[in-house]
Amino acid sequence: MKASIMHAEMAEQSAVLAQLVRAADATIESVKAVIPKHLTGITWVARGSSDNAAVLGRYLSELSSGRPAGLAAPSLITRYGAQLDYRGQLVVGLSQSGETPEVVTVCESLRQAGATVIAVTNVKDSRLAAAADAALLTEAGAELAVPATKTVTAQMLLVSLIAAALGSLPLTADDLRRLPDAIDDQLRREQEAEDLAARWFTYEGLVVVARGLTYASALETALKVREVAAVQAEALSVPDLLHGPIAASRADLPVLLLGGGSSTEADLNEVSDRLQRLDVPQHRFDAGLDLPEVLTPIAATVAGQQLALAWASARGLDPDQPAGLSKVTLTD
Amino acid sequence: MKASIMHAEMAEQSAVLAQLVRAADATIESVKAVIPKHLTGITWVARGSSDNAAVLGRYLSELSSGRPAGLAAPSLITRYGAQLDYRGQLVVGLSQSGETPEVVTVCESLRQAGATVIAVTNVKDSRLAAAADAALLTEAGAELAVPATKTVTAQMLLVSLIAAALGSLPLTADDLRRLPDAIDDQLRREQEAEDLAARWFTYEGLVVVARGLTYASALETALKVREVAAVQAEALSVPDLLHGPIAASRADLPVLLLGGGSSTEADLNEVSDRLQRLDVPQHRFDAGLDLPEVLTPIAATVAGQQLALAWASARGLDPDQPAGLSKVTLTD
Repeated sequence: MKASIMHAEMAEQSAVLAQLVRAADATIESVKAVIPKHLTGITWVARGSSDNAAVLGRYLSELSSGRPAGLAAPSLITRYGAQLDYRGQLVVGLSQSGETPEVVTVCESLRQAGATVIAVTNVKDSRLAAAADAALLTEAGAELAVPATKTVTAQMLLVSLIAAALGSLPLTADDLRRLPDAIDDQLRREQEAEDLAARWFTYEGLVVVARGLTYASALETALKVREVAAVQAEALSVPDLLHGPIAASRADLPVLLLGGGSSTEADLNEVSDRLQRLDVPQHRFDAGLDLPEVLTPIAATVAGQQLALAWASARGLDPDQPAGLSKVTLTD
Repeated sequence: MKASIMHAEMAEQSAVLAQLVRAADATIESVKAVIPKHLTGITWVARGSSDNAAVLGRYLSELSSGRPAGLAAPSLITRYGAQLDYRGQLVVGLSQSGETPEVVTVCESLRQAGATVIAVTNVKDSRLAAAADAALLTEAGAELAVPATKTVTAQMLLVSLIAAALGSLPLTADDLRRLPDAIDDQLRREQEAEDLAARWFTYEGLVVVARGLTYASALETALKVREVAAVQAEALSVPDLLHGPIAASRADLPVLLLGGGSSTEADLNEVSDRLQRLDVPQHRFDAGLDLPEVLTPIAATVAGQQLALAWASARGLDPDQPAGLSKVTLTD
């Protein structure tokens, strides 16, 4: 595979995560310091790859706090002028650059509506950090390739720590300490993605399927394959696939299954059996299965990055500069 | 176009909606009677087409109540055993049959966790209706074709009425009375969908793009085209398209834009310009633009049904019985 900035930035992930793991206790304390006293729920605000980290945060924060969590619908504020009452809500805004105008605007509005806002960003002096009650930094260094990689897995770790601060998660300090090595192991296993890309690179579409926590990784894998390899890739949860789209399954639309641990093992096996009967090409990634389920999505996301990069390489595309994209998307 | 049950059931939509409009005041009162006194937020629970009506409900209920709304993540309950505190939450569960096991299970669990539950279903004696504090019936009569049509637009009207009960919406009684005629007009305009299907039916993929409230219609249009015409159709909001997937735009992947009124006009125009520069085939549906923006998604959904049916017909597929699907999907 040719050298690319994307590949180099992916390789930095275990070190970036190790640094965040070392600061985990302080991060959890800084979140605890701003949690609303009577927490009514948690709202996540993001776009693009950050939105996929937000999906993981949405699951984990409800699991830990027991309170309803959800994703913001920015257009309610920016297009329909909704008058909101967000007292008691914890709002988490994520943006690699900290400058995505829509994310900043929504966080500012929700703070004015009574919410406590936490920013998750890679840029300390960004507008998003300034708009928040507390800012958590991904500390990933400059990210130069257009496809976000190391900042996404860093965001995923930080949203896990936010969730841990909100209550009880099946995640120990020892689990956290094992994460960097597990990611290192995954980074060394790129051959599996390269072999798969060699088989699949002529397909024009891809469906990435997962259930539960790893659904966030499926969304991120689909987005990355789409951006980098110019393939119509999309993510579906297991129930969403079975509730209709499986009717459009076909021999030229391969399905990638992302394993997520024992809680969802039966779901993935059921889908795999159905696809086999329909003669649909399928492959399953099982990344990070030595980690607790809470951390598995981070390893699965790395596996998805490896597939996107290998697929682009097989197609002769430059992963660092996909056609039609720039690093900061100025939607508002 | 050949006679199909789907086409006949689509034609019933104006009558089904007219009946629900006549009962609108009573429906709104029955919702008001069960709203939690200190409403902390609204959670929507559904799968498949009902989930797309839920997305509309998620937008409208936050717009009207000012409180955070979101979609449930069922796996937190059914796969991860989350211990939840949903006191103060209004939960709305939607299922045409009222028997989708996962939707029933999640509604029962959230009610035990303190939520007030409203059921929206087509079957009065269903498990979902029995699990709720109040049941709203779509009163659409038996739906025999596998692709849900008249029950979906009926659900969309009922979620609009639930939102109206929660606060203030830009929607008058007179607007509601105009809805059935507007849907009738749209039902008579099927030629536009047939012409488009005649141009596009050889494509294997479709991207349906909208912003704001009509995003729910884009999701439903993509699902319907996928189920009925076996095309890899997917929905993207305008910002989500611009945040990455536009990089995978190509000449053999057409884009359908769904207009939603003045609030999102500039967004759609921006996307249209970008697609034109990329030489991507595009078409725009503007259904129900004589309606207020709150009701436009119902008309846009009908337009999407028309495209799905015409696309299936152009491909010689039976829309009533798509391969691999049954009416009740037994995921749990």
